[in-house]
Amino acid sequence: MNAEIVNIGTELLLGHTINSDAAFIARELSALGIDLFHIEVVGDNASRLEYILKTALSRSDIVITSGGLGPTDDDLTREVVSRVMGKNLVKDEKSLLKLREYFGARPIGENQYRQVLVPEGAHVFYNEAGTAPGFAVSYGGKCVISLPGPPNELVSMLEKGVRPWLANFCSGSIWSTLIKTYGIGEGIAAEKLGTLLESDNPTAATYAADGEMFVKVTAKAENKAEAKSLAEPLIQEITHTLGDVVYGRDVPSLEYVAVTELIQRKMKVATAESCTGGMLAQRITDIPGSSQVFGLGFVTYSNEAKSSLLNVPEELLLKYGAVSSQVAISMAMNVRKIANADIGAGITGIAGPGGGTPEKPVGLVYIAIAFENDYRLIRLEPHGMYIGRNFIRRKASSTALDMIRRLLLGLPAAAY
Amino acid sequence: MNAEIVNIGTELLLGHTINSDAAFIARELSALGIDLFHIEVVGDNASRLEYILKTALSRSDIVITSGGLGPTDDDLTREVVSRVMGKNLVKDEKSLLKLREYFGARPIGENQYRQVLVPEGAHVFYNEAGTAPGFAVSYGGKCVISLPGPPNELVSMLEKGVRPWLANFCSGSIWSTLIKTYGIGEGIAAEKLGTLLESDNPTAATYAADGEMFVKVTAKAENKAEAKSLAEPLIQEITHTLGDVVYGRDVPSLEYVAVTELIQRKMKVATAESCTGGMLAQRITDIPGSSQVFGLGFVTYSNEAKSSLLNVPEELLLKYGAVSSQVAISMAMNVRKIANADIGAGITGIAGPGGGTPEKPVGLVYIAIAFENDYRLIRLEPHGMYIGRNFIRRKASSTALDMIRRLLLGLPAAAY
Repeated sequence: MNAEIVNIGTELLLGHTINSDAAFIARELSALGIDLFHIEVVGDNASRLEYILKTALSRSDIVITSGGLGPTDDDLTREVVSRVMGKNLVKDEKSLLKLREYFGARPIGENQYRQVLVPEGAHVFYNEAGTAPGFAVSYGGKCVISLPGPPNELVSMLEKGVRPWLANFCSGSIWSTLIKTYGIGEGIAAEKLGTLLESDNPTAATYAADGEMFVKVTAKAENKAEAKSLAEPLIQEITHTLGDVVYGRDVPSLEYVAVTELIQRKMKVATAESCTGGMLAQRITDIPGSSQVFGLGFVTYSNEAKSSLLNVPEELLLKYGAVSSQVAISMAMNVRKIANADIGAGITGIAGPGGGTPEKPVGLVYIAIAFENDYRLIRLEPHGMYIGRNFIRRKASSTALDMIRRLLLGLPAAAY
Repeated sequence: MNAEIVNIGTELLLGHTINSDAAFIARELSALGIDLFHIEVVGDNASRLEYILKTALSRSDIVITSGGLGPTDDDLTREVVSRVMGKNLVKDEKSLLKLREYFGARPIGENQYRQVLVPEGAHVFYNEAGTAPGFAVSYGGKCVISLPGPPNELVSMLEKGVRPWLANFCSGSIWSTLIKTYGIGEGIAAEKLGTLLESDNPTAATYAADGEMFVKVTAKAENKAEAKSLAEPLIQEITHTLGDVVYGRDVPSLEYVAVTELIQRKMKVATAESCTGGMLAQRITDIPGSSQVFGLGFVTYSNEAKSSLLNVPEELLLKYGAVSSQVAISMAMNVRKIANADIGAGITGIAGPGGGTPEKPVGLVYIAIAFENDYRLIRLEPHGMYIGRNFIRRKASSTALDMIRRLLLGLPAAAY
């Protein structure tokens, strides 16, 4: 069984919206073992959409669309899908009830009612986060599933409606796992892994995302259990070869791992951030349950805040400057004390674009992790061209999280 | 002139990577007035890539690819593009020099050298953020531009290399602007705008992204100046109709507007965050120059931190709970005093998934903005289904930024 994704919306062709819908749908298909070979994006144009849908249906069993189900005139998906599948549009009574419920006492605009129309005979997916329902319509052994474009509506509908509905169609024969690393580049990893990446079944492939490097191992077999045991030896070899840069398998993120290790040890962390401006605290508190291990963070952007609130000695700031190893260490040690935490993290650096000097260029960041009677320190150097504050801030916060992970697991400090 | 984007990489089909490259390329094309009707994603598979490239070249003048230029064996783009365009691969000497420079004293793996091969006669775009160069290769009036997949490498190459190179091919005849709003839904906006959205040239289209709603107005004319004046009356009408939910035109973000208004007034803001965990501080400090207006932020996740560091009276915490209007106001007023700032922002709420009660459900957030002798308060209610911490945290921090904007501009408080 294979599928194809068609994302609909002129905003995608203008580059105003990043197409996260495609990734959300692709993950569901991958988990269900449904092959996906093509993703297309098309604007709010009926004839081009019709052409794309017909092409997709000619080569794929299932076509999943996102977008174009809203109330406005450029929302054309339900009309075009119905035409391509040879169905009439009919009113769905339950959608009408839900629309009225959604609006409550507020007036319902005339155009809103278009959203309760679905192709005749379609299975309807109700929208728990918005007004437009989705649907699945079948004809001649092919199926089109149309979902709303806003990611929150799409994700809830995928999870609650589409996943169980599609699971009925599929037999589980693919199994895959994701080995996640921090602190190694894709090129170096590929050289280390060598022929391990050439295996046919299971397969292993590297890729880089957001400053991290992942290895995906996938196996096919009669059933998931067989596929899993087929993959296991390769997973072991890859994990062993890469060593302690591997921070987890099928874990959501570096912050998830750091927070989970803290929870297990009943340890607390406190943060003192300058150039990252709260990103480290935000990533830690992004993990449900983080309140067990995180009570307090400071964003001390100014020197005054560093000295008055974090008690960083003014002499240090004057002698070495705010961006210095001495200040990072002082921030980490002092926030640990103030918050009565087990671990203190201090970050100070130059995220740019301004503020750099020959001695302290944009991209220079000091990260200190303080613990009982000791600390670890990392100096991140600018690397390649300047590509924005966010890249530097993300790398600094990821490195701090990885330093915490390594400390908790008793691993030596790494170079980044 | 029209173009088409082909994003290459199995990781995109597995949903591990969100395709931001397509949006970056689409924005460049839109700015240059080049029509874009199709975006396709294809895996690391030579025959499917070849088929997609041929289809794209049959209907588009320019095909821009991203991905598949790296050193590993599944990086097939340069080979397939050369074959489709009928060119041999040749060594680019400058790329070889740059590769050696990049590695410096480190050893260069054999597979790295594949990256210095480009199609014969191609224009080479050098990579300032990585090792793989991009290139543009022309044949029979058609052109393929191949760029690296990692977003930081792609963006720098687009800006430094591709944009000036493509600008030579295009005449400026399209002009567009983006009207950005916060606090109004797409459906309500479309109803308010009515026939303004039906205009042919200029056109106006609404779309929603990340909890905000944008209206894009585009005009075509002989030259950019004419297109701009053609669009102006419609822009005025739309802006007038939408009113003060409009926070800017062609501005980068809500945080950019808030920080810019603060800078202009030489005013300082300080933040005290609970459920947003530093996201507000992070968004403020994401703006270059924010150090002029932001010196200090607290992430007081625990009650203890709220009382000991922000001086929130323990009676308030006991009587009303940490998630209450009283605590939000106290956080905002106290952080303003501690930081000696003009404006204090306090946020407390329940981001979930746990921690909700019937009286205080997940999604309930109080946001207070304190200023001289007064404050504004907003209570965000849960809306629709729970779709994750990030959505609630993002909405809370956006609302705080919009409240600051409205306060500074002398606008009344809004409902959100």
